[in-house]
Amino acid sequence: MSIVTLTTDFGTADGYVGAMKGVISSIDSDARIVDAAHGIAQGDIAAGAWILSTYWQLFPRSTVHVVVVDPGVGTDRRPMACAAGGHYFVAPDNGVLHHVLKLHPEARLYELARARYQRRVVSHTFHGRDVFAPAAAWISRGYDPREMGPAIEDPVRLDVTPPDSEEGTVTGCVVHADAFGNLITNIPGTWILDCEAVEAGGHTITGLVQTYSDVSEGVACALVGSAGTLEISVRNGNAQRALGVGVGDAVSVRLAATA
Amino acid sequence: MSIVTLTTDFGTADGYVGAMKGVISSIDSDARIVDAAHGIAQGDIAAGAWILSTYWQLFPRSTVHVVVVDPGVGTDRRPMACAAGGHYFVAPDNGVLHHVLKLHPEARLYELARARYQRRVVSHTFHGRDVFAPAAAWISRGYDPREMGPAIEDPVRLDVTPPDSEEGTVTGCVVHADAFGNLITNIPGTWILDCEAVEAGGHTITGLVQTYSDVSEGVACALVGSAGTLEISVRNGNAQRALGVGVGDAVSVRLAATA
Amino acid sequence: MSIVTLTTDFGTADGYVGAMKGVISSIDSDARIVDAAHGIAQGDIAAGAWILSTYWQLFPRSTVHVVVVDPGVGTDRRPMACAAGGHYFVAPDNGVLHHVLKLHPEARLYELARARYQRRVVSHTFHGRDVFAPAAAWISRGYDPREMGPAIEDPVRLDVTPPDSEEGTVTGCVVHADAFGNLITNIPGTWILDCEAVEAGGHTITGLVQTYSDVSEGVACALVGSAGTLEISVRNGNAQRALGVGVGDAVSVRLAATA
Repeated sequence: MSIVTLTTDFGTADGYVGAMKGVISSIDSDARIVDAAHGIAQGDIAAGAWILSTYWQLFPRSTVHVVVVDPGVGTDRRPMACAAGGHYFVAPDNGVLHHVLKLHPEARLYELARARYQRRVVSHTFHGRDVFAPAAAWISRGYDPREMGPAIEDPVRLDVTPPDSEEGTVTGCVVHADAFGNLITNIPGTWILDCEAVEAGGHTITGLVQTYSDVSEGVACALVGSAGTLEISVRNGNAQRALGVGVGDAVSVRLAATA
Repeated sequence: MSIVTLTTDFGTADGYVGAMKGVISSIDSDARIVDAAHGIAQGDIAAGAWILSTYWQLFPRSTVHVVVVDPGVGTDRRPMACAAGGHYFVAPDNGVLHHVLKLHPEARLYELARARYQRRVVSHTFHGRDVFAPAAAWISRGYDPREMGPAIEDPVRLDVTPPDSEEGTVTGCVVHADAFGNLITNIPGTWILDCEAVEAGGHTITGLVQTYSDVSEGVACALVGSAGTLEISVRNGNAQRALGVGVGDAVSVRLAATA
Repeated sequence: MSIVTLTTDFGTADGYVGAMKGVISSIDSDARIVDAAHGIAQGDIAAGAWILSTYWQLFPRSTVHVVVVDPGVGTDRRPMACAAGGHYFVAPDNGVLHHVLKLHPEARLYELARARYQRRVVSHTFHGRDVFAPAAAWISRGYDPREMGPAIEDPVRLDVTPPDSEEGTVTGCVVHADAFGNLITNIPGTWILDCEAVEAGGHTITGLVQTYSDVSEGVACALVGSAGTLEISVRNGNAQRALGVGVGDAVSVRLAATA
């Protein structure tokens, strides 16, 4: 028995999530299905990738994480399973596992090619039900992803500029804007202990605070967020809207001169 | 022990879903409650009926499917339980089981009339908690719906024009618009293998494709969708908005002359 | 093993709910995690408090109810655990347990102060993951909240005017507007059996009905709702918008003279 987590962009107004759960339950009646997030913006692979990165390691080993943000369903993008860090992943090969693979370059990846691990008839538009859900359930039952198809050596990655540091300035970018409008960057908190000022979208924020409430209502602040990276927020407001900054936009941090 | 699936129009901003789960857990502590869809448009019985039809058969036999889209709560519309196709259903008698009953004319239906299978006090406005949840939990524990009240012989049906075929033209209608704006019809895919053109809302789409990505961004296409019926889509767009076509609207398919 | 219910304002577009579930599953692999409501308006403590009050008592004894609506995260507001009415609660001390404490003045409350019941590193912005989820899981495993920190004697309460009755008039206020726009008040249904008219926002509604459908489409009505209190509704409409009345607004009921 294992846990199977689900993240999709299907929302809660259709039967798609229910269909995936039905398929999983029919193959592995002991699987414990856990909803992670079904409100990913439609087709937003980068959001799916980021969101997965914020929870998967918190689950027990051997958990199977399914991520279906799949605008290329039915094309030649490969469906895949992945073993990494003691966990399993089932997802389209479109970059949605980017952060997992960055953290675990030793990950083993396999194309979900074998018909015996798919539903008898595979539609062209709903691999969540016909390919990913069955694969997840078979893995949950103990089958090895290696059995499911040929190894994948060149998985698709996202085009995320890694953070950089030079002459007292750290640069990076916004990797996610959450539902509260917080702008989460890929700049590690440990790099900016001496932060003097943060710049994004033409706005300058002085210094780091510890939590949202360290500034007044509606004021922007910079802090090390729950992902351990630089986050820009507006207290009881929406930094994304207030600053006009979004995913992919550059952020830079000027460090204090350490004399 | 069995699985109890839930579909409602309650959303996730109120305690209504939690209340139903509490009642179920208190009666059958072993029930495995599975959220199917809580974002059905308020009072949209046809949407609830369609969505149920897309997942229920995928669950293991003996699953109990609860659907609460119930604008007539507290009126004389009957609450009912149903046994069909090896599964159980608990829902108001308002058409929400339309597609189940169409597929399984032999279904047995019973009014949820007996007080012993309801909460002690039954409100006039929340039968999800007071009537449907307890009935589902008792069925999950093994009680027969037949015990719960008199048989229903004339369940309410939806007014859905069945698809028709005449002189090289197949006609049908849109039965659901999903969150992606895909227009799902009731025209069986097997009827339109020789599709020459699809007409809906004054728009003509030539031929069938296999998946959304077979056309360019923003272009409308017709395909056999994941429900096995004709579906009209716009790649990375919203066909419902782009074509101005919605649920109930007519769709026709001109077949190629087979000389 | 016990049930752990979750209510948050995190929505379903981020990894926050998944992160909490991961932490809980890792500490208590037997915990049965139940989603109550993740769509609470961001930071709306009063809504979280009300919604909790509508479901917690329906779960079996020993259920652990987690509520994370926590705009003051990282400030000196205390995280706490609570034992009341045979159930457990884990939440910030910000008023979100108001209705629980009103019903159970004998509740025992403890500050979640001991590091051993928290994650090793506690962020300043996500106590749902780092403080509340672990505490809930340890309680689910059988640990006593008393072990987790010093008793709290002065929990924060909401500023809700209790209902009052004088000279044939009952007064109260709107405590919640649900997703259907129903205005739920704190006036007990048992106080207004002789209701002659309800006044709110300058509108007068004559008499009580039993259910929404007792009036015509779009017409406002007053009834005793599923929480047992006075509720103002518009049939197949939205009373909150139609009447321009919202949470906190005064409602009064004129009783029939009982000559």
